[in-house]
Amino acid sequence: MRYELYYWPHIPGRGEFIRLALEEGGADYVDVARLPEQQGGGRAAVQRMLEAKSGGRPPFAPPILKAGRLVICQTANILQYVGPRLGLVPKAAAARLWAHQLQLLVADLLVEAHDTHHPIAKSLYYEDQKAESLRRAENFRSLRLPKYLGYFERVLGENPGGDGGFVGSSLSYVDLSVFHLMAGLDYAFPRTMARLKPAHPKLTALCERVPERPRIAAYLASPRRMPFNQHGLFRHYPELDGE
Amino acid sequence: MRYELYYWPHIPGRGEFIRLALEEGGADYVDVARLPEQQGGGRAAVQRMLEAKSGGRPPFAPPILKAGRLVICQTANILQYVGPRLGLVPKAAAARLWAHQLQLLVADLLVEAHDTHHPIAKSLYYEDQKAESLRRAENFRSLRLPKYLGYFERVLGENPGGDGGFVGSSLSYVDLSVFHLMAGLDYAFPRTMARLKPAHPKLTALCERVPERPRIAAYLASPRRMPFNQHGLFRHYPELDGE
Repeated sequence: MRYELYYWPHIPGRGEFIRLALEEGGADYVDVARLPEQQGGGRAAVQRMLEAKSGGRPPFAPPILKAGRLVICQTANILQYVGPRLGLVPKAAAARLWAHQLQLLVADLLVEAHDTHHPIAKSLYYEDQKAESLRRAENFRSLRLPKYLGYFERVLGENPGGDGGFVGSSLSYVDLSVFHLMAGLDYAFPRTMARLKPAHPKLTALCERVPERPRIAAYLASPRRMPFNQHGLFRHYPELDGE
Repeated sequence: MRYELYYWPHIPGRGEFIRLALEEGGADYVDVARLPEQQGGGRAAVQRMLEAKSGGRPPFAPPILKAGRLVICQTANILQYVGPRLGLVPKAAAARLWAHQLQLLVADLLVEAHDTHHPIAKSLYYEDQKAESLRRAENFRSLRLPKYLGYFERVLGENPGGDGGFVGSSLSYVDLSVFHLMAGLDYAFPRTMARLKPAHPKLTALCERVPERPRIAAYLASPRRMPFNQHGLFRHYPELDGE
């Protein structure tokens, strides 16, 4: 099966969590919006999917994965679907529920990280909500982020699978997502992360191991991997990163 | 199987989405934290679950559902688990993915509704983030809420099942959740909702049908159903409801 991913082509965004799973799983996929426009790519490709006749199941927002006749949205839902097909989650139903539960927590943290620079409205520029951003980011750095990272560290320590990953005894899509999440946080909040990481050695070690996997290493070195930038979920505004 | 639900006992909150599914499905369940403290209830019951040895799968936050040896978190994940067991979602895998996708959108909207009164920090009082709330609520009323409601109306109109629900041809847990979501929005934003509802007749009709179902009617009339209040996800601050 050739998967088709539809996501805004100018940012890693939520699409990146899907890409990492597809890459590690060796999937046959097309990142449609990153094709040249004359080959049907660009933002227009995403727009077409949002406006297409949907057979009663219209997408609300990208990422959108087309898998044969299925059209699936919501990052965690897509990963739940492709995970078993790519060998990125254990077979047991309980382990799959658990992996999905962790992925939903990644999604929660993503929203909070995004809202540090857009606490009032997605439709306004950062500059028009900067005062509010300063307040929200302070709370994120001092309370919310440590709470999430502490939880992730605890889960890695308690996993009876014991290979240093989040779920079971081999790599899962959750590991890939948390690796990317931490990379985004490093980009957006370098000072804060430098301060927090020493207290989270298992999480830090996971983030060093993931990019050494051959397929991930090849992907990260390729033009398919986009750098973080100031239009995405994670943005680096030094004033939001504290002292 | 007797399910055990753990959720803060003083607000409907996210627990309510689970309760509605358990009630409509005729499940045998205990709402543990709503038992008297001397019977093991109260906030302490939730706290105990958060701190208990977890077999490597610790909960991050309530709602928490105990189903035999399974401990499941994240509202949408819990509904995905109980839905098929309670006959609240079709059998086909594609329909289940779709129901879950819609439930994740309900979760997204919930966060946005909550953040209208807490745009800066969960750890601060509303009064300490009121100026920011006024700005965020204005954007929510004028852009975000209409976008979500318009999408829900579209989905109801396009469902080939055609019984007036979101998924397939009979009631699903998504219908129950959207009913409760709309009730919460009616509580928090009565003026805004009175303005928006006429343009969303299918959504409005769904919200009138759900509480007429015998089990839901009995539940809503019982002391098990908590009223909305000013400590929950949905709060009524008239100044956030616009002109």
